[in-house]
Amino acid sequence: MIFTSHMDIALQEAQAAASRGEVPVGAVVVSPNGSIISRASNRTIEKNDPSAHAEMLAIRAACELLGQDRLAGYDLYVTLEPCAMCAGVIAAARISRLYYGASDKKSGAVEQGARIFTHPQSHHKPEIYPGVGEDEAAGLLKAFFAGLRDTPP
Amino acid sequence: MIFTSHMDIALQEAQAAASRGEVPVGAVVVSPNGSIISRASNRTIEKNDPSAHAEMLAIRAACELLGQDRLAGYDLYVTLEPCAMCAGVIAAARISRLYYGASDKKSGAVEQGARIFTHPQSHHKPEIYPGVGEDEAAGLLKAFFAGLRDTPP
Repeated sequence: MIFTSHMDIALQEAQAAASRGEVPVGAVVVSPNGSIISRASNRTIEKNDPSAHAEMLAIRAACELLGQDRLAGYDLYVTLEPCAMCAGVIAAARISRLYYGASDKKSGAVEQGARIFTHPQSHHKPEIYPGVGEDEAAGLLKAFFAGLRDTPP
Repeated sequence: MIFTSHMDIALQEAQAAASRGEVPVGAVVVSPNGSIISRASNRTIEKNDPSAHAEMLAIRAACELLGQDRLAGYDLYVTLEPCAMCAGVIAAARISRLYYGASDKKSGAVEQGARIFTHPQSHHKPEIYPGVGEDEAAGLLKAFFAGLRDTPP
């Protein structure tokens, strides 16, 4: 079952990232009983960490909290189509269901590009539900990048 | 220039991982002037972190040390062909040269499977040098998995 309220929280996280000057992407990990285990947003600039994407931070936080390196039965909500790195960690963590918002022609690796889950070297493929909260997620990104262009150098 | 001594240190890291019961893969980040910035090995079990592969940890450590989220001009030595997640972070970090040991038919995403660097959604492709220290790296992995099979359940 898709809980739009979970994507709403991912969108709040994305908005928070934008307010810090980070690319607005947010993610939430949800337990099998529907409770939110972790929430995160992009912090690559703040943390000086190229891996600090929303999905990566949310998965790492959930694993740390639960004391396990896999999240079978857990769902991930993320506002943007995951990149290759994040699709890779989603597979490694055995996330059961992946809900995402906007497609990402530029960096996406689920429905385009590397299509991570379609290869036998990906040891797990989650159920995938694209387009959840797509308009809001895409709107946040569009406004963010328009703002960057409008900022004097 | 390939410094086999750098791969030797990555192999030492891989050996250290094996001694802790982790899959033996090691990695080293080397600066443009040839000095080692960081070294790491797999710690997915110890850290309860599915992202804690050798390459990921070495790149994150180097970025933290240098206070930057990109490593243009820096090289990565890793004993095994990177998976999709690690190839993704290598691209995100703008690693200049990737030297790796053994190919990985099971999880590799550089020369097989997702072939991360061949898609336009990968914003960077390092120079790639496979097969550096391949026999030693593959030998460590083979011995490790043979040991697991021989361990009584």
